Amino acid sequence: MTADDRVRALLDTLGGQFDAGALLVNGQVSGSYAEDAMGRGVRPPVVLRPGSTEGVAAMLAAADSLRQPLVIQGGRTGLSGAARPLAGEVSMSLERMTGILALDAQAQTITVLAGTPLQIVQEAALDAGLYFGVDIGARGTSAIGGNIATNAGGIRVLRYGMFRAQVAGLEVVLADGSILSSLKGLPKDNSGYDLNPLFIGTEGTLGVITKACLKLHPKPKGERNALLALPSLSAAQALLSRLRGEIGGLISAFEIIFPDVYAETVGYMKLRPPVPVGSGLYAVVEIQGQAPEEDDARLEAALGAAIEDGLVEDAVLSSSGREFDEIWAIRDGINDYLFSLGAMENYDLAVPVSRIEEFVARAETAVADIDRSARAFLFGHLGDGNLHYCVITEQAKSVSKAVYEAVASVGGGITAEHGIGTDKVAYLKLSRSDAEIAAMRRLKAAFDPNGILNAGRVFAAE
Amino acid sequence: MTADDRVRALLDTLGGQFDAGALLVNGQVSGSYAEDAMGRGVRPPVVLRPGSTEGVAAMLAAADSLRQPLVIQGGRTGLSGAARPLAGEVSMSLERMTGILALDAQAQTITVLAGTPLQIVQEAALDAGLYFGVDIGARGTSAIGGNIATNAGGIRVLRYGMFRAQVAGLEVVLADGSILSSLKGLPKDNSGYDLNPLFIGTEGTLGVITKACLKLHPKPKGERNALLALPSLSAAQALLSRLRGEIGGLISAFEIIFPDVYAETVGYMKLRPPVPVGSGLYAVVEIQGQAPEEDDARLEAALGAAIEDGLVEDAVLSSSGREFDEIWAIRDGINDYLFSLGAMENYDLAVPVSRIEEFVARAETAVADIDRSARAFLFGHLGDGNLHYCVITEQAKSVSKAVYEAVASVGGGITAEHGIGTDKVAYLKLSRSDAEIAAMRRLKAAFDPNGILNAGRVFAAE
Repeated sequence: MTADDRVRALLDTLGGQFDAGALLVNGQVSGSYAEDAMGRGVRPPVVLRPGSTEGVAAMLAAADSLRQPLVIQGGRTGLSGAARPLAGEVSMSLERMTGILALDAQAQTITVLAGTPLQIVQEAALDAGLYFGVDIGARGTSAIGGNIATNAGGIRVLRYGMFRAQVAGLEVVLADGSILSSLKGLPKDNSGYDLNPLFIGTEGTLGVITKACLKLHPKPKGERNALLALPSLSAAQALLSRLRGEIGGLISAFEIIFPDVYAETVGYMKLRPPVPVGSGLYAVVEIQGQAPEEDDARLEAALGAAIEDGLVEDAVLSSSGREFDEIWAIRDGINDYLFSLGAMENYDLAVPVSRIEEFVARAETAVADIDRSARAFLFGHLGDGNLHYCVITEQAKSVSKAVYEAVASVGGGITAEHGIGTDKVAYLKLSRSDAEIAAMRRLKAAFDPNGILNAGRVFAAE
Repeated sequence: MTADDRVRALLDTLGGQFDAGALLVNGQVSGSYAEDAMGRGVRPPVVLRPGSTEGVAAMLAAADSLRQPLVIQGGRTGLSGAARPLAGEVSMSLERMTGILALDAQAQTITVLAGTPLQIVQEAALDAGLYFGVDIGARGTSAIGGNIATNAGGIRVLRYGMFRAQVAGLEVVLADGSILSSLKGLPKDNSGYDLNPLFIGTEGTLGVITKACLKLHPKPKGERNALLALPSLSAAQALLSRLRGEIGGLISAFEIIFPDVYAETVGYMKLRPPVPVGSGLYAVVEIQGQAPEEDDARLEAALGAAIEDGLVEDAVLSSSGREFDEIWAIRDGINDYLFSLGAMENYDLAVPVSRIEEFVARAETAVADIDRSARAFLFGHLGDGNLHYCVITEQAKSVSKAVYEAVASVGGGITAEHGIGTDKVAYLKLSRSDAEIAAMRRLKAAFDPNGILNAGRVFAAE
């Protein structure tokens, strides 16, 4: 059967079962279905837009029996191409499956349809006096199902964990159309295998998430942040260890900014630098707690002691909501500044916390050996070893390989939160052994034997 | 090949590769290898005692090619028969693979061999000024590998999570002898599938854990507890919600004890009741924090307000280490008291927190319908919905079915922490759908196609 025949057969099978809104064909398919946040793929000939779990199941069963490859799409805000269509793929978009199904304040859980944007979940939690632990820039557009499939992270991982830690239960449809519902949301349950992890961070390759039960947290009564100038990366590491011991339950973010990125971002934003340029490293520390006055006093005391001990050179603590936002605006301004510089390579690396310095030195040398005029910009989440490493270079391919090899050489991972998608498939073997990749393939063969779901993501299709 | 021939062939294959200490045969096999904490199984004809990951791999490869079923054993402290040998099984004990391989204070991780007792990990963490988040009664004997394979929980799950939440990395040997090493211990890493969850809580059915990298936490600077008398279960639920909102970052345990269990345990221990008998429910609340004086003041204030609002009738707060231990001694005394009553059925149930009352009423009626003279004893971890439900009855089988049906009817799980093992295989289908069990079998077929690892645990062998 040709690719066209297959698509026609799929439409024939599904046409009688679904209304027009569930099947977009040819001219009805807008170009946006070809895109993710990083670029343009192939416009799919058909977009399947199921409105229910049963709809997903019927569509998958039909595609599976025809061996029709599908790309699964949520908000299409991914950063590594998992939702960017490849040639021959039909899209399945969860965009019609949105909404909150239940919020259990006693159990502190919320159950939603997979197409629901993250921000809707965050707001519903706040309305109930609770808090959702993950926040990312794409909150208004990115869908919960995609957040889970990519195990999204963000800046508060050291407090609340990645998306993986927010999942209390999932409903998933397998490639053959069978429905796995594990939505009980029990915090402690060893009644057989926990199947949910199979679908978290596996980028839509093992099943289509249709519903999720997510954990909520108590709403913090206060939050405060500080912008710090530090003598060095090792001082920042020592400070983080000390803060963990003293106010560990309060810390919700510990971001680092390398000195040139700080100076240039502040310059780009036309700000008077809140702490002076010229230090060895900059950091944004945030606390969230339930006793705001006491918590603030403890943060001030801890930072005061750190200044006395030489771990911190200068500090500005926010003392109002406006100042709190101004400090975060500098961190957020980095992306605007870097964007203004034009095209660059953007690496999202997982580095063992104790080997960041070693990694930076190795990467610097390796990149310079390839492209003496390359410029690197570094910032990231110190608490969890997630380093954003951006490089302006004419030698993108060689530089990418060198950076990924450098991170692998210190025992790190080539992507901390963005995922492998299609864009990093060639580099997976730097981070993972042949045995590990073979185990991933065993899972793929067990759950999607015909390879119809997001084929070619994470590892090459068979 | 007969079973005896198969065992002989296994010994022939392995005899040349391993020293005598690695292979116990017939008379060398003490009766203890037949036992777990709940009873006696079949004494295995051979115990394999590998001393290294490579040893495990060679032994598994040999057993797999001979289709020789194995039972995997750690400390043999399990409570549901996963490590209790069945007829025809050879044991593989990890007891020679003990010891700490590394402790990274900056990353707050510890890497150990799978046979290492839990208590060794706890003590090493404390020696480094850190803290391990899970504690269970069998700490001195239970092995880390078994803790992970059963996803052990304990009393501080609402603060630190189950064992699942402590795992930063695993090294595992699959049935065919291939070695999966995912020991980087990175807190944030989306470089391909996370394979570790496959081996957490799957009771040794998908692979043999040989090493683990575990997360550590800051060592609490202070801990304090309180024994509370409350008017009702709903008051306890309201109190827990309120405490989460006010001092949620401090709470490390919230145990409930039903009134007759409290009164009788205190009587059995010959104590003057610290809070009077006669209330509707009793609770032990524990906090752990890094600012002991402020934390204590916050606990006192929160409990004071709860007393004023009628959520708590009476409270005793510990004001010394001795008093702290005395309050926990009452909670721990429950097991001694129940043990003194002789044989009873012991259910470890996962109940949705908001439906505990409904479950208790349903179970009570169902049990009484079967055995009017049955007596139930209830206590558990309110924060995570884990209810220990113990029953003295002559109708054990019918009562078990009734209790498990009752918990399933309120959307609960038949085992919160002890696992399915061999003992609860018949009841798995009450908690999990046919599709879920089929998915578990897909995993089993993918990772242990010959069914040599802990066959018949979790679900029936094919």
